[in-house]
Amino acid sequence: MTLLDEFVAGVSRDVDAKLDALIPEAGVRPTRLHEAIRWSVFAGGKRIRPAILIAVGESFGAERIKLVTAAAALEMIHTYSLIHDDLPAMDDDELRRGKATCHVQFGEATAILAGDVLQTLAFKSIADDTSINGDTRLKLISLIADSSGTPNGMVSGQQLDLDAEKQELSIGQIAEIHRQKTGALITAAAVSGALIGSAKETEIEAIRKYSESLGLLFQITDDLLDITQETSILGKTAGKDVASEKATYPAHFGIEKTRAMAASIREAAIGSLGALDRDTELLKQIVDFVFGRTK
Amino acid sequence: MTLLDEFVAGVSRDVDAKLDALIPEAGVRPTRLHEAIRWSVFAGGKRIRPAILIAVGESFGAERIKLVTAAAALEMIHTYSLIHDDLPAMDDDELRRGKATCHVQFGEATAILAGDVLQTLAFKSIADDTSINGDTRLKLISLIADSSGTPNGMVSGQQLDLDAEKQELSIGQIAEIHRQKTGALITAAAVSGALIGSAKETEIEAIRKYSESLGLLFQITDDLLDITQETSILGKTAGKDVASEKATYPAHFGIEKTRAMAASIREAAIGSLGALDRDTELLKQIVDFVFGRTK
Repeated sequence: MTLLDEFVAGVSRDVDAKLDALIPEAGVRPTRLHEAIRWSVFAGGKRIRPAILIAVGESFGAERIKLVTAAAALEMIHTYSLIHDDLPAMDDDELRRGKATCHVQFGEATAILAGDVLQTLAFKSIADDTSINGDTRLKLISLIADSSGTPNGMVSGQQLDLDAEKQELSIGQIAEIHRQKTGALITAAAVSGALIGSAKETEIEAIRKYSESLGLLFQITDDLLDITQETSILGKTAGKDVASEKATYPAHFGIEKTRAMAASIREAAIGSLGALDRDTELLKQIVDFVFGRTK
Repeated sequence: MTLLDEFVAGVSRDVDAKLDALIPEAGVRPTRLHEAIRWSVFAGGKRIRPAILIAVGESFGAERIKLVTAAAALEMIHTYSLIHDDLPAMDDDELRRGKATCHVQFGEATAILAGDVLQTLAFKSIADDTSINGDTRLKLISLIADSSGTPNGMVSGQQLDLDAEKQELSIGQIAEIHRQKTGALITAAAVSGALIGSAKETEIEAIRKYSESLGLLFQITDDLLDITQETSILGKTAGKDVASEKATYPAHFGIEKTRAMAASIREAAIGSLGALDRDTELLKQIVDFVFGRTK
């Protein structure tokens, strides 16, 4: 096991335990709602945002106990967005991480409510986490709301994406969509870790740059996998972007040029860490993991 | 104009101005999303939750400037729930406050996102409101999340309501659904006002009882109007509860007995205010308004 494998396994264990504690048990009424939430939250997600948050926070010396609630909250926000994104009125996806999507399993109405209330639980969990000081909690809530909201966050990115379907986009427009839809929450993860770790302004800026490159890399590799990988390996329907004529990097630049871009963004991400006088080995390995991922 | 009419007109003006400031302008990209949000937020809502929050807060001496953000946030939560509740997969309603519902006007995908991000904006607005102290902001976020969430809030109430369609319910089950689906957020409004007004524990308890009666009264009169009033006056489709065989007070007790219950709950609400050594005239008038409303 590499350092990163061990770290990610530990993060998954700790974040899953926290999610389990924060989300009402499946037996609590209304059971259908709580089953649906748990179906999607514990569907084998890679916990990438929690790993980024915790890796950054620990690089600034924060204890894991102070990081794990915000990490779980980000995963709840991410999961709510997946549940709603998969709905028939949105991407209409039946498969997610190799399992039936929430609305296929529990019906559309329950899936809408499960997504809604995961967002609620995310903000509540941070507000209630007395292991970190009140001022930091408020900053985290504001940051995570901005990056999952509008006009420069995840939801505005999803709307731009909807508006763009079947349209010819410039690469600047594609980048804007990615930055909002996927990048903003990854940046929120990294900056949350830095905030909890009491990082200085200049350190937060370095982490922000690192995470912006990481977010872009994440989206580009996602686009590449959609076009080059098979459904059975991805655990979600491959080739959807081409089928829906979605604006993607490979569609715009071709596969080879997109791969070269990914390599240079990987360099930029690692370069941003140079400004930090910290142990950033894990943060580098996260970049390499995203760069080399096969699903 | 009665005292209440004047108060409600002032609250609507102040809360609408705050909502206008907090929500991105319709011209900001993605414009379709922001148009959809504004379509629903400024659709002529009665601002009942803001009025309750501000009336309670002012009875404890809080300045309006400290109350109006939380009031706007509650209205955003309420509006998000209406947008999602109206979706085809939920209540499938085409008319709300006499206007086309959000998904009819802007499409389902945009309506889902508009609801999602109104929730996000609500929590962000409170987190960022420096006119009230940090500790109170965290309490408000936690309270509003509990009462709009699960397992004892608005979303769990909506799920119980879904689960109950076409089933024979006991009056206890009907009351549970109402308490969660409608009552919890009304109680949150009242208790938020008390928290911002630095009310004592015993005062908060009196306000909680008052608002629980008020919430129940609100739901019962809602049920009565659905069965006795016309669509053109309600501004939403009348008779939906009967058509969908929904569990309601009039369906269970009949119209006359339900009216008598409403009268006794009105008495209880006003009685709860006896414990407060404050000017509660406005809080009494709110009860009478809900009791006597015709739409």
